[in-house]
Amino acid sequence: MTRADGTTDVPDVERDAAGEKLAAVRTLGGGAPVLAFDVGGTDIKSALFDADGTALGLRRTPTPIAEGDRTQVLLDRLEVLAGELRAAHPDVVPQAVGLVVPGIVDADAGLGVFASNLGWHDSPLRDLAAERLGLPVAFDHDVRAASWAERRLGGARDYADAVVLVIGTGIAGALLVGGVPYTAGGYAGEIGHSPIADGPICACGARGCLEAVASAGAIARRYQEATGISPEGAKDVIARAAAGDETAAEIWNSALDALTMSLAQLTAVVAPEAVVIGGGLSRAGGALFDELRTRLAARLSFHRIPALVPAELSGNAGLLGAALRARELT
Amino acid sequence: MTRADGTTDVPDVERDAAGEKLAAVRTLGGGAPVLAFDVGGTDIKSALFDADGTALGLRRTPTPIAEGDRTQVLLDRLEVLAGELRAAHPDVVPQAVGLVVPGIVDADAGLGVFASNLGWHDSPLRDLAAERLGLPVAFDHDVRAASWAERRLGGARDYADAVVLVIGTGIAGALLVGGVPYTAGGYAGEIGHSPIADGPICACGARGCLEAVASAGAIARRYQEATGISPEGAKDVIARAAAGDETAAEIWNSALDALTMSLAQLTAVVAPEAVVIGGGLSRAGGALFDELRTRLAARLSFHRIPALVPAELSGNAGLLGAALRARELT
Repeated sequence: MTRADGTTDVPDVERDAAGEKLAAVRTLGGGAPVLAFDVGGTDIKSALFDADGTALGLRRTPTPIAEGDRTQVLLDRLEVLAGELRAAHPDVVPQAVGLVVPGIVDADAGLGVFASNLGWHDSPLRDLAAERLGLPVAFDHDVRAASWAERRLGGARDYADAVVLVIGTGIAGALLVGGVPYTAGGYAGEIGHSPIADGPICACGARGCLEAVASAGAIARRYQEATGISPEGAKDVIARAAAGDETAAEIWNSALDALTMSLAQLTAVVAPEAVVIGGGLSRAGGALFDELRTRLAARLSFHRIPALVPAELSGNAGLLGAALRARELT
Repeated sequence: MTRADGTTDVPDVERDAAGEKLAAVRTLGGGAPVLAFDVGGTDIKSALFDADGTALGLRRTPTPIAEGDRTQVLLDRLEVLAGELRAAHPDVVPQAVGLVVPGIVDADAGLGVFASNLGWHDSPLRDLAAERLGLPVAFDHDVRAASWAERRLGGARDYADAVVLVIGTGIAGALLVGGVPYTAGGYAGEIGHSPIADGPICACGARGCLEAVASAGAIARRYQEATGISPEGAKDVIARAAAGDETAAEIWNSALDALTMSLAQLTAVVAPEAVVIGGGLSRAGGALFDELRTRLAARLSFHRIPALVPAELSGNAGLLGAALRARELT
């Protein structure tokens, strides 16, 4: 349901990729009540988690777009959202806030270093949000927070050394080393912007990035460019490939090869026990996972092949990660 | 000087790649006296480090080749070498032994899991050596031990998150994460056996590994295959390229491109602050380092480009790492 003000309750259907498993982890477990915000390029997800760890008032609202100081406009929106959540649940008193954002993030310094869609540069988001919201703020990168949620509550729970890969419009990644996210000053895990070929040019400015070849967005775009037909997402291209469309099959095959190449490099260099794959493309199920397992084994020799497992927290991993980070402050 | 028994003192000229810097770190600094062994596919380097950290009796001897139980033959040789070192320096009483070996190594379990040239499978080398030598044994992977020495004493001393890359006959690597080697059960760091192309077939059985394209060994072999002329190593191919030999230039160019591709992937995913490059090819100096810096910057966009720095401990990094590991037991 979309309201007049543009806000949307996040319906269950948008969080059901992993079915029962998601239902089982919708709660964080017991702890301090916290506010959580997952700020994306188009939407902000927000919720108030109560002492049982249940998400109250979970919804998705458009990320405000405005000229001028984008940081202040964002803080205004967070303040409104926090106020609404607190007003709707006066008996749940949050002790801290979790705020996660995309781009290059220096979590230790509390800085949003850079985010192409959000217009900030070295913005001290953690401290600004703490001042505005009157609560301590835990600040992190959205996909690293998501990886932390998958580690604590989801697909990475059995793996101390793991890579979490989110394949959707773009491709984002995060490394778990010894059970905790590895940051390298905010620069680690950019698997989507790791080169695997000489082209095409990626939105980031480099060429041959994995994201430009094998993201769900790239698969749909490449099909549209090749045929003039606008597919209904990568899922449609995969279905067309299965139905005998040669162009679709070629594009899907090359995307699988590119993903295999990146996974093979990860396996050789980082040697994770598991790669946890989420995002829209992970809903392709066996068409993705079985193909990647077969191709990866064929591509390597003595290496330790990681388990390829579906992410379990689906679109809410970032928000759950934000809430977990906030709990750590209490 | 090679002796009648096949042993060789390691002359200074073999350890001089970094000139004065090497001289400055030839000592470990003060600590317990220890024995150190760096076992390779062709040679064993051995030395007794005294309480000042000076290497006594440093020499290189052939790795014994024999039918039958290769582990026992190796232990026999280590016992002889240890006995000779102790007999030559009766006033220096070692408190522990550092033993480093190539291949897949499970340092925590003390196992040599696999080494293609050395014939063992899941061999409990640490405990067997401790029993044979009558001293506690620190056991590690040769290149991870080398990376530890570069971290403590050499080119990685200023970088907590670094990759050490040794480009010689093959290509070996090790990751330093938060200042310590990252092992992933012995499987991490295999940058040489990370695919960067569809071919050629690598000695490991996979195809398109970096080592098969860009190691010093591969550069020389590829030139020999293309021209029928046996070059005097990769250095000779690089010199021929500089002198206008088009085949040499093409091979050297493709090796630089392959190394750039691997470094770009490392930068995107692991984001080390520095990549410390050693091994024979690192002696190419600016022809290697300047080219890689230029090409890497051209290949990436928002990423944090690592410093590319020469290894400082040259051929002795593994032995120094073994000694450091042994000291940690005392």
